[in-house]
Amino acid sequence: MAAKLGILAGSGELPLRVIDACRAVERPLFVLALEGAANPDDFASVPHATIRLGAGAEGLRLLRENGVEELVMAGPVRRPTLASLRPDWRATKMFARIGLRALGDDGLLSAIIKEFELEGFRVVGVHDILESLLAPEGSLGAIAPDAQARADIARGFEVARALGEVDVGQAVVVQQGIVLGLEAAEGTDALIERAGRLQGEGPGGVLVKAAKPGQERRADLPTVGVATLEACARAGLRGVAVESGLALVIDRAAVSAAADSAGLFVVGIKAP
Amino acid sequence: MAAKLGILAGSGELPLRVIDACRAVERPLFVLALEGAANPDDFASVPHATIRLGAGAEGLRLLRENGVEELVMAGPVRRPTLASLRPDWRATKMFARIGLRALGDDGLLSAIIKEFELEGFRVVGVHDILESLLAPEGSLGAIAPDAQARADIARGFEVARALGEVDVGQAVVVQQGIVLGLEAAEGTDALIERAGRLQGEGPGGVLVKAAKPGQERRADLPTVGVATLEACARAGLRGVAVESGLALVIDRAAVSAAADSAGLFVVGIKAP
Repeated sequence: MAAKLGILAGSGELPLRVIDACRAVERPLFVLALEGAANPDDFASVPHATIRLGAGAEGLRLLRENGVEELVMAGPVRRPTLASLRPDWRATKMFARIGLRALGDDGLLSAIIKEFELEGFRVVGVHDILESLLAPEGSLGAIAPDAQARADIARGFEVARALGEVDVGQAVVVQQGIVLGLEAAEGTDALIERAGRLQGEGPGGVLVKAAKPGQERRADLPTVGVATLEACARAGLRGVAVESGLALVIDRAAVSAAADSAGLFVVGIKAP
Repeated sequence: MAAKLGILAGSGELPLRVIDACRAVERPLFVLALEGAANPDDFASVPHATIRLGAGAEGLRLLRENGVEELVMAGPVRRPTLASLRPDWRATKMFARIGLRALGDDGLLSAIIKEFELEGFRVVGVHDILESLLAPEGSLGAIAPDAQARADIARGFEVARALGEVDVGQAVVVQQGIVLGLEAAEGTDALIERAGRLQGEGPGGVLVKAAKPGQERRADLPTVGVATLEACARAGLRGVAVESGLALVIDRAAVSAAADSAGLFVVGIKAP
């Protein structure tokens, strides 16, 4: 039997998918639900504890006491300010070493992963457990992007990579060459809604979600699910593009069906 | 007497400041108010015409008939989609040559300036007419950024320059190292309002407005005015940073007074 998996659970349905995958192979698991991100009710039926982000020592103790050997981070967590984090002595020790101010989101997550490894845990990515979540190349549904949409996708990736170079954001909305919106702390759904309102006449915008260049793949890969498609449909966007093999698509069949029924495309583009 | 100045008027008070400057030296002028951006009522007392953005031939004719020799673009214009632009033959000819899809905002504005030059107009920048608008180095008001704010400003410029490299946006809000928001098509006021809501505990965010690397200085320099300060104060931000000599501060005394009374800093930082 595989070693017990510790799941650091953020928001959304990704932690639930990881639990499903463990159940399917009867792998033992323990969930550490992160306060302010995860919904603790989601984990009532599995061994779990809830913990605030700054409680480093307690988190490590819980993982050890529950016999966790391997760890996975699943689901987004909004980054707190240092003031709201109230780090305990263990978290403070880490921040003192890495220098919180200088780090972007991916830099911070990489540092946290390194910290868990120094404490003796193996850290894997969601895609190591659920390889089928990685976006394939090409259109997922029946609809393919047209020439204007392909040009907008290319522009979106160009901009997203420039953002990624300075470790900010993952998502961009482009309409007819015009960058309508860039994601920072507001999250993708808020970006989609705002960009939808800013659209001009003619063919609608496209949402591009890209990994950061050199991104730590065990943390926070760009993710698309049915909710993303529904938000794009409500906002009047034309489709979604992600990098094949680098983004996660939660429930590919449902995403594909949602795209077809809304008349949107979802496409995986091979990263250059 | 100086040659007649044509003012391509966008939104905000910058066109009015240029008119004031012309009046002060009794320089003749003609305003072409851009539909959807400029408020035509602002120009009732000066020679002017209103024109839609796509009407290239009519615009050139109006400038020539009114004896304009030198041109200045003043005030932001939201970029339209090609569909809403409905370009006439003259604008279509330009777009056919430059390839609209491939251009960012600064690329497009540079191409438009070149087009006017080919038609025989001299094109100058707002700062050529109103040199006093260029942001000085150092704090404008009584309040200076503290160490955390200076770190956030440095991070903001790093991110803004990365965005500028791909010719998107000019403004970024950073709080305690966390990039809260990035400007695209929504405009700076909407960015400020959104980022304010996303702030976490502790010292508030700072707004950074940066020119793009290699930016065409005769178009759309980053601008700060009293309204910017008021929006930052409402949103709970701590201050504003711009690049000295590269950003415009409209009514420096009023901005400085507004900053002091709201307890905010406004600082010009020398670009590296």
